[in-house]
Amino acid sequence: MYYLDHAAATPLSAKAKKAFTAYFSDQFFNPSSPYLPAQTVRDAYEAAKDTIAHSIGARGADLIITAGATESINLAFSFRYSTCNRDKCVLISAVEHPAVSETAKKSGSYDTIKVSKHGIIDLADLAAKITPHTQFISIALASSELGSIQPIAKAAELVKAERARRLAAGETTPLYLHCDASQGLGILDIKVARLGVDLLTLNSAKVYGPKGIGALWVGRGVKLEPLIVGGGQESGLRSGTENVPGVIGFAAAIKEAAAHQKTEQKRLLGLKNTLKGILTSADQPIIFLGDPKHQLANFLPLSIPGLDAERLIYKLEKQQVYLSTGAACAANKGQKSQALKAIGITNEQIAGSLRISLGKLNTEKNIQQAGHLILEAINEEQERTSGKTK
Amino acid sequence: MYYLDHAAATPLSAKAKKAFTAYFSDQFFNPSSPYLPAQTVRDAYEAAKDTIAHSIGARGADLIITAGATESINLAFSFRYSTCNRDKCVLISAVEHPAVSETAKKSGSYDTIKVSKHGIIDLADLAAKITPHTQFISIALASSELGSIQPIAKAAELVKAERARRLAAGETTPLYLHCDASQGLGILDIKVARLGVDLLTLNSAKVYGPKGIGALWVGRGVKLEPLIVGGGQESGLRSGTENVPGVIGFAAAIKEAAAHQKTEQKRLLGLKNTLKGILTSADQPIIFLGDPKHQLANFLPLSIPGLDAERLIYKLEKQQVYLSTGAACAANKGQKSQALKAIGITNEQIAGSLRISLGKLNTEKNIQQAGHLILEAINEEQERTSGKTK
Repeated sequence: MYYLDHAAATPLSAKAKKAFTAYFSDQFFNPSSPYLPAQTVRDAYEAAKDTIAHSIGARGADLIITAGATESINLAFSFRYSTCNRDKCVLISAVEHPAVSETAKKSGSYDTIKVSKHGIIDLADLAAKITPHTQFISIALASSELGSIQPIAKAAELVKAERARRLAAGETTPLYLHCDASQGLGILDIKVARLGVDLLTLNSAKVYGPKGIGALWVGRGVKLEPLIVGGGQESGLRSGTENVPGVIGFAAAIKEAAAHQKTEQKRLLGLKNTLKGILTSADQPIIFLGDPKHQLANFLPLSIPGLDAERLIYKLEKQQVYLSTGAACAANKGQKSQALKAIGITNEQIAGSLRISLGKLNTEKNIQQAGHLILEAINEEQERTSGKTK
Repeated sequence: MYYLDHAAATPLSAKAKKAFTAYFSDQFFNPSSPYLPAQTVRDAYEAAKDTIAHSIGARGADLIITAGATESINLAFSFRYSTCNRDKCVLISAVEHPAVSETAKKSGSYDTIKVSKHGIIDLADLAAKITPHTQFISIALASSELGSIQPIAKAAELVKAERARRLAAGETTPLYLHCDASQGLGILDIKVARLGVDLLTLNSAKVYGPKGIGALWVGRGVKLEPLIVGGGQESGLRSGTENVPGVIGFAAAIKEAAAHQKTEQKRLLGLKNTLKGILTSADQPIIFLGDPKHQLANFLPLSIPGLDAERLIYKLEKQQVYLSTGAACAANKGQKSQALKAIGITNEQIAGSLRISLGKLNTEKNIQQAGHLILEAINEEQERTSGKTK
């Protein structure tokens, strides 16, 4: 199998599996129960939260466990700082995942931060769009379609400057910066202080952890409203009996990823270059998408204008080469990618676009073979199409 | 170990574990991805939803998968039928779990349906409180503290009568009945048509399935608003990449429970009677709580007035007897149980109350031993207290 879709899903790591299995039928107790074995489960749960938090330079107490990145994002947007009477109290980048763009839509009125042809946010546009009424800004650490890494720390500086201005002017409207770090976790070294954000979304399923688990890091002073109320778990911000095995598995996965982050990043970059080399070896009009200088090491989005990417995917499936046309999200079905539209490529280029994302299941040999299979499939498709048009 | 807290948490069944393990690292694909192995995962996911739905006599397409009962309940309350200008558009029973009562509070204004001293809803009170403005009624199938089984089908008749009246009167305000069946799943034979409800909450973790998974069955014509938006999964009502292993495990667990429901119900009733017999054999002033005629077979809530239940629990913990004082919920910490207050027992009776809930981990011998250990601990505590007061 040539699995080139690690941005859509990752297999559970052996270490995560080993770590969380004990919590299925042995340590199965409800962490809120009063007796000792349940308290031991509570301790393990809190320790796992600490492990997850430490990997981003934070404290477990500031982490709200959720059922995944989408819920984390929705929770981050639950801010109720002050009434938003003015338009566009919310700003998001033009290349956000639907989890962010749909939540922004739901929030009422929002504005979009322009991006370059490489999918990088335009900081001047952001600076211009931050008004005294702006309350919430959400920018993904890396685009889920392009892998382009955003200048979050620079965006955070603009936020801090505006906050300082408001403080000096005696204005009380708060302003917060949320970063969706679903893509990039395990590939980049992510620390909340360095990013300068107020809220950070994490996703277990993208980092070889169990599915159905995510987290939202909430910085000091940020006030959120729970989406889900009840027993008051997670500091009252997310009720429901804790998914103990999920959190234990997530912690093991993120710990493992952090331990190998630098070497894995280097290895993935090597694989990407191998694949890029093979694909450019033939005379095909391939356009590589995203920012070549600021791109996740495992991302290789590209377009072959004129080609039908969906046909190519079905062709490659027969060779056990698995890749995607865009973010693997239900909402994207039959819709053109918002992110690809935002970077200004043509409809023909969008129709011919592929998202290749590498990961643990790839080796040098595996990628060499996959590269040749992809190239062969592209050649065949091009011949078929040119034969037709003749 | 004498585990007498199955209402708080259940160990994962071996069958559920076997069923869902394949979806960790082999069938790990994102069900929304376009290639064949991902489509196979999609098919398995939908089949699992069908299995869960069939166990309650419903279709998989009408089931929204969530991260647990609390989320399901919050989603059920997300109704946006018509503006609720009048007070008390929502009715809940007086013995609901905090997941229901807190969500009702959040909804604005609600009223409470009275219960008998056994914790059974007063149907006359319900009938009186259903007004032309009532839009949403939530009643648990069985109380999580008392195990009292509510006359849901009779409540549904009242709802239907009011709907018929509104239709005849040309009134368009809708009215829906939600039932939280977290407790009772696997013990009772639950069918949505027989209950006559519009919405039903299910919980995997209470039925020996994986944690962090629940479902909301949504009847025809019921319109909900998503709490979590994004990729549009679960018919747009609950976005986020599907927790495939969780759903596969839940389906296996519920299938197993349904297959053995009748024999297990009988077995648990036998165990309960054994335990009750032992506890009443000594001359202790034990009050059994809940409705003796309409109570879950595995529930044995009781009170020993004057006894400190918390002390007893710590004492029994040393003998590896694990039981609870109330619902194992964070919000209950340090608070008196709402349900026990609602049935009108004294503060002294509440302070001396225990919730015993039986299940798969109990055998006849296990329960006999547990019964004697509990009785011994009660005797010791009573002697200690009477020694003090002397």
